[in-house]
Amino acid sequence: MRMYDLISKKKYGGILTDEEIFFMIDGYVKGKIADYQMSAMLMAIWFNGMNSHEITELTKVMAQSGDMIDLSPIAGKKVDKHSTGGVGDKTTLIVAPIVAACGGKVAKMSGRGLGHTGGTVDKLEAIPGYRTVLSREEFFNTVEKCGVSLIGQSGNLAPADKKIYALRDVTATVDNIPLIASSIMSKKLAAGSDCILLDVKTGSGAFMKTLDDAIKLAQTMVTIGEGAGRRTVALITDMDTPLGYGIGNSLEVIESMEVLKNRGPKDLTEVSLQLAANMLYLVGKGSLDDCRKMAEKSIQDNSAFETFCTMVKEQGGDDSVLRDYNKFEKAPYSLEIKSDREGFITKTDAEKIGITSVILGAGRETKESEIDFSAGLVIHKKYGEKISVGEPLATFYTSRKEKLSDAEKIYREALEIGKEEPKKIPLVFARVEKDKVEKFKE
Amino acid sequence: MRMYDLISKKKYGGILTDEEIFFMIDGYVKGKIADYQMSAMLMAIWFNGMNSHEITELTKVMAQSGDMIDLSPIAGKKVDKHSTGGVGDKTTLIVAPIVAACGGKVAKMSGRGLGHTGGTVDKLEAIPGYRTVLSREEFFNTVEKCGVSLIGQSGNLAPADKKIYALRDVTATVDNIPLIASSIMSKKLAAGSDCILLDVKTGSGAFMKTLDDAIKLAQTMVTIGEGAGRRTVALITDMDTPLGYGIGNSLEVIESMEVLKNRGPKDLTEVSLQLAANMLYLVGKGSLDDCRKMAEKSIQDNSAFETFCTMVKEQGGDDSVLRDYNKFEKAPYSLEIKSDREGFITKTDAEKIGITSVILGAGRETKESEIDFSAGLVIHKKYGEKISVGEPLATFYTSRKEKLSDAEKIYREALEIGKEEPKKIPLVFARVEKDKVEKFKE
Repeated sequence: MRMYDLISKKKYGGILTDEEIFFMIDGYVKGKIADYQMSAMLMAIWFNGMNSHEITELTKVMAQSGDMIDLSPIAGKKVDKHSTGGVGDKTTLIVAPIVAACGGKVAKMSGRGLGHTGGTVDKLEAIPGYRTVLSREEFFNTVEKCGVSLIGQSGNLAPADKKIYALRDVTATVDNIPLIASSIMSKKLAAGSDCILLDVKTGSGAFMKTLDDAIKLAQTMVTIGEGAGRRTVALITDMDTPLGYGIGNSLEVIESMEVLKNRGPKDLTEVSLQLAANMLYLVGKGSLDDCRKMAEKSIQDNSAFETFCTMVKEQGGDDSVLRDYNKFEKAPYSLEIKSDREGFITKTDAEKIGITSVILGAGRETKESEIDFSAGLVIHKKYGEKISVGEPLATFYTSRKEKLSDAEKIYREALEIGKEEPKKIPLVFARVEKDKVEKFKE
Repeated sequence: MRMYDLISKKKYGGILTDEEIFFMIDGYVKGKIADYQMSAMLMAIWFNGMNSHEITELTKVMAQSGDMIDLSPIAGKKVDKHSTGGVGDKTTLIVAPIVAACGGKVAKMSGRGLGHTGGTVDKLEAIPGYRTVLSREEFFNTVEKCGVSLIGQSGNLAPADKKIYALRDVTATVDNIPLIASSIMSKKLAAGSDCILLDVKTGSGAFMKTLDDAIKLAQTMVTIGEGAGRRTVALITDMDTPLGYGIGNSLEVIESMEVLKNRGPKDLTEVSLQLAANMLYLVGKGSLDDCRKMAEKSIQDNSAFETFCTMVKEQGGDDSVLRDYNKFEKAPYSLEIKSDREGFITKTDAEKIGITSVILGAGRETKESEIDFSAGLVIHKKYGEKISVGEPLATFYTSRKEKLSDAEKIYREALEIGKEEPKKIPLVFARVEKDKVEKFKE
């Protein structure tokens, strides 16, 4: 078998066999196939695509290129969640304890933030003492004890994806549904959960700008998951506007705790409940309606919050900050920015607001950047809300006083204020299950 | 400027600017742009093509990546010829002296053979003593004295093409008209002639299998040539069947001399006269008809043959072999293969016959292979000719006795014999001049 022939086959729209996909990925990981051949193949895939069988096989082979985590020592069905990345998206901190409080098992490895979107691991590290690196035994024991453990990625998960992603990143082959889907799902398959709930973001702050593309990506990932024997569901959620009001690591932990205490913002609470209900549905806790009710109950009776606190303590964290937010370290500088117009907010561009938070120190501009946990911003008025002259739009928190004016400039660019109340946008646009797409309207 | 953005632009069907093309080629030659980015770009070009302006600019930049030969010290208009490669294609040995005998100037650098097609330099080296490597001064002096000099490629011609071609060769991006055209024409532009006559082969033994593709390639190359200020014409000629009857280096020299002595085979003579007439037309020797008559006269009055002999002597060769072919070294083994059927030859597959000659020792299987100048074959009956049982089909010449049976096997596969006389195929299908395509019928 020669890589040349595989490139040529794909270039002419051919279907790669299982053997050919294995040959290509195995050879590439082992350095027998050169970058320049793989990049030509990736571009041919960009143009000619892959069918469902090819994508599933590619994903499995990429997953099997490294460690395949065996979660079977943990009793019960384990459910993972993946978000394609958003601004203010702190749902993992909320849904994981809800699911655990309702009897599901969440043994989840999360990533760090890069660019304008945050990462769960960074948010968790805003909790003093919280250890995101655990041994396998500690990880498993935490799940056994609390029903949930949230840690950072460890081990050698899907190294083929790592190598291919790095190549895609420099050869303009990132924006391709088969390649995005196989990249995400290879890591999910390797991470070992029985069930996978996908949160595919769409809108200006998301990678998938249109609902159609988001649904296509969701369908592709659901097909891969089911094809690899994992129960998989996807929700398509809005990322035109940031989720919730807090953006920045400790600010997002606080807002998440507010949701768990049943006094969080409506949008974040609603999306979190839908995600959690679907995770419970996946692990077989009943109908979607029943699961939704269970999830609601877990925040009404405080059991989800207590579950989170137990996990935090188990992983070395100080849960008193979750009960008294004043114990979080405070940013030395803050700035409230005010509206000079009256009307309705008709745009809160998620990407620009994400960039604002990075400027304030909440994110990483490069992989080596240090994060300032106390930095970030609180939105006071967002899409659809009414504003008067002089009312606060947002408050910024930072230890980089000199960045405040840059941050304000970009934040103001993120907003549009009009006279008419804009139409409501659904929080969840669609739900994708095996062979089934439901679209929702608000 | 970033190569990433250029790949992305081309991937979405964008048009590269002159600055972008320069950035890409200059960066690649200087090693600032990696192979994996260039191969992604080449694949994007494979899918989305390039417009005439992009192709012309790409070609000029590739030409200018190395030496640009200045032929201006040689008086008069210089005309180059390029063939896309064929089996038994010895026309350069014929047309160059015809053009010179009629007052044109041919300062031509040729290539060696690889695979199933031969190369002019190998054929010339079958002439004892002939030097294909000359200093620039010797080269220019030979053209001044004889009107013609045929040498091997020297200097650093279009190194960008060399590097890009090597990459295309391993990334399945060879078969693309913009890339083929720019590769050929970059070397022609660098080689410095004022006019260029292109012989684009079509048929089973050619790279362009269909007439439409051959015409497209010809039009693209003519556009490049004219766009770069060189008068350019292309003929589309048949390569379903080998040209002439002799295949192998000294056998092809002999057959070429027969044409120059006005007793060569009809097909080879006709194609050569049309090529030569077009070269004379390009350098301004009159109408195409007048040029054809001049070319015919030069073989009737022996002036073309004498011109060739003068050049051979000037370049250290022994021209006596051209007058007495017995002086060529003989192959120690020969085999005449005979027909076991009667009928008409309905196929003489050029590619398979080319492979037969390589097996006999006439060509190179790898770049390092040594050529046996005396090896090859003489076709006795080809496409359209009648054959009886027991009549000779071909005679093989070799110094590798053990290869004769393999050679016979492939040669017989190259032939088809039928009951009906097959329809005549034109020798020249079309002629492409700037903004003009003429198709010919036999």
